[in-house]
Amino acid sequence: MKFTCSQNNFLEAVLTVQKAVSARSSTPLLEGILLETQKDVLKLVGTNLDLGIETYIEADIREEGSVVIPSRLLSEIIRKLPDAEIEVTLLGNYSVKIVCLNSLVTLQGFAPDEYPSLPDISESEPIEISKMLLAKMIRETIFAVATDESRPVLTGSLLEVEDGEVTMVSLDGYRLALQKGRIESSAGHRKVIIPGKSLGEIGRIIDGSDDNISITISDRHVLFDLGYTRIISRVLEGEFINYRQIIPEDYRTRVKVDTKILTSSIERASLIAREGKNNLIKLNLQDQKMTITANSESGQVYEEIPVLLEGKDLEIAFNARYFMDMLKAIPDQEICMDLTTNVSPCVIRPIKGSDYTYLLLPVRIFG
Amino acid sequence: MKFTCSQNNFLEAVLTVQKAVSARSSTPLLEGILLETQKDVLKLVGTNLDLGIETYIEADIREEGSVVIPSRLLSEIIRKLPDAEIEVTLLGNYSVKIVCLNSLVTLQGFAPDEYPSLPDISESEPIEISKMLLAKMIRETIFAVATDESRPVLTGSLLEVEDGEVTMVSLDGYRLALQKGRIESSAGHRKVIIPGKSLGEIGRIIDGSDDNISITISDRHVLFDLGYTRIISRVLEGEFINYRQIIPEDYRTRVKVDTKILTSSIERASLIAREGKNNLIKLNLQDQKMTITANSESGQVYEEIPVLLEGKDLEIAFNARYFMDMLKAIPDQEICMDLTTNVSPCVIRPIKGSDYTYLLLPVRIFG
Repeated sequence: MKFTCSQNNFLEAVLTVQKAVSARSSTPLLEGILLETQKDVLKLVGTNLDLGIETYIEADIREEGSVVIPSRLLSEIIRKLPDAEIEVTLLGNYSVKIVCLNSLVTLQGFAPDEYPSLPDISESEPIEISKMLLAKMIRETIFAVATDESRPVLTGSLLEVEDGEVTMVSLDGYRLALQKGRIESSAGHRKVIIPGKSLGEIGRIIDGSDDNISITISDRHVLFDLGYTRIISRVLEGEFINYRQIIPEDYRTRVKVDTKILTSSIERASLIAREGKNNLIKLNLQDQKMTITANSESGQVYEEIPVLLEGKDLEIAFNARYFMDMLKAIPDQEICMDLTTNVSPCVIRPIKGSDYTYLLLPVRIFG
Repeated sequence: MKFTCSQNNFLEAVLTVQKAVSARSSTPLLEGILLETQKDVLKLVGTNLDLGIETYIEADIREEGSVVIPSRLLSEIIRKLPDAEIEVTLLGNYSVKIVCLNSLVTLQGFAPDEYPSLPDISESEPIEISKMLLAKMIRETIFAVATDESRPVLTGSLLEVEDGEVTMVSLDGYRLALQKGRIESSAGHRKVIIPGKSLGEIGRIIDGSDDNISITISDRHVLFDLGYTRIISRVLEGEFINYRQIIPEDYRTRVKVDTKILTSSIERASLIAREGKNNLIKLNLQDQKMTITANSESGQVYEEIPVLLEGKDLEIAFNARYFMDMLKAIPDQEICMDLTTNVSPCVIRPIKGSDYTYLLLPVRIFG
């Protein structure tokens, strides 16, 4: 194997596929990146078996071949090389010579034969979605994915497509985050549960451009095709919770509040709340005001902010972190909170548009 | 105690004195900051017994008094408050009420009686030095302070003043870093060994302005007076090594090299070297070239850079990190390396000016 390519392109490709590579694996081969020449391009592959990423870059292929190179060391070396042409040559015993201007680095690689192949998914009836929308959907829902494995299906997000509408939902038993969007698609009803870890890496790879991504769902995998880069994730098997029936349609108290002001107050209350056992904040809704209080051994916080309040007064308590997670994720200036009682879920939506829904269970501490 | 002051001033003062406060102390009182009213100013004090910092801010004092407040929580709360007036009131049982616009925070504090007093140092014959020079001296020498405690005196830097010249020296048995500067001072010969940890915090507090700092040396302490802020450090007792006799005056090989090019090459070599046992890089000086090589199980690096070489050819090995530490600290474009044999120290200086000296012992691997 022998090829030349630009340092810039090579680095970008290595950093992309590296997102699927485990920093520490019991199999050293899986800590590596597969390089494989293909006619006039170079293919790079990284995988942790759950997630696989392959990307292609322009390269001048002088001799065909393939090899696996330790990912972390390769990316560090390439990052430190000057922005010039790089020549890569496979020597004997899978060591790889990298030459760039006056630098010559030899790295010990591995035979590529045992490197796992990414699943072969034929792109039939792909779903087309803009990178910008997909990135937003991931960003505003992924934090609600369950982190404990007691119900594996909840460690992923549901992606559902129906009638030109795409929905992403994450929930962990305490809160639910849902983001909808519209796509041009004639495809029928489809759904898939994508592991949160895969989705996080996908979010880090796609930029916020208007370009489209093709998503293909197969029985056991989902493929995100970005053109030069293909991302393939294992899907989670099982039925996702019927989230529609969890979201209440009625409310007895509706509050409209400025997101920035609310965020500042809850941030301060969180500093005191987190010193306590339950990380609790209490909200009191009355007289066109929201008061937020928190107590712990370290002290107390009392915050008062103006709100637009319709309906009944209410006193309710939440986990401070679950509230903050949502406030940090959404970009909207004003939000609307719909509440019924202090033991029933609170539904939070941006005032403008109804594409985003956050549902948060209160903590029962009253009467 | 009751006072008002601006959030901005209060935050800056808290962050300054916090640099002397241990994050975790066996005495909770030492995790706190002392607030004490003094006529029309507020005094803040932080100390870990080795280092003490006091600072004064303008405040409208309504009632005199003092209290100790947990440092970390106080700084986090103040940081999250809006840029407005803050009112602080001491309540019963040493709890402290902080009010800012619509926020009310109560923090549990401690009685100030047991809080250690900073040593009283009378400023006789202070040394005046610009903040910019002191900051540079710290930045370019502190990394060579010994980290192991086997020779306690080497865990500090020597500050020496004589005949209008000020010198700071750190050394750890493997390398020495020395920075000189000129000051306007008629004071006689003075020297003091300042703990590296204190010096690091002092470096973080002083900005790079042209203003002067007064340094007063007493038997057991050194005082840095910045005007509104006074920093007092314990000094290390004992005799510092006679560093002058360590620095060789002769050389048989002199190399002049571009700092940036050398840094890039050594960075790449370090990536391979650090995978090995001894973190070794080898330099070969010959034919107006420096070649840098490193080897480990992970691979090899060979770097070739142009140099101006006078005198004998030489092959010599160094610890890669000790070489990089210096390259990262000095801002000069070109450096000069003076060498004698591959078992005697290498002296590195900027080509312009002779105020900075770095001495590095080679690693013996040849013959």
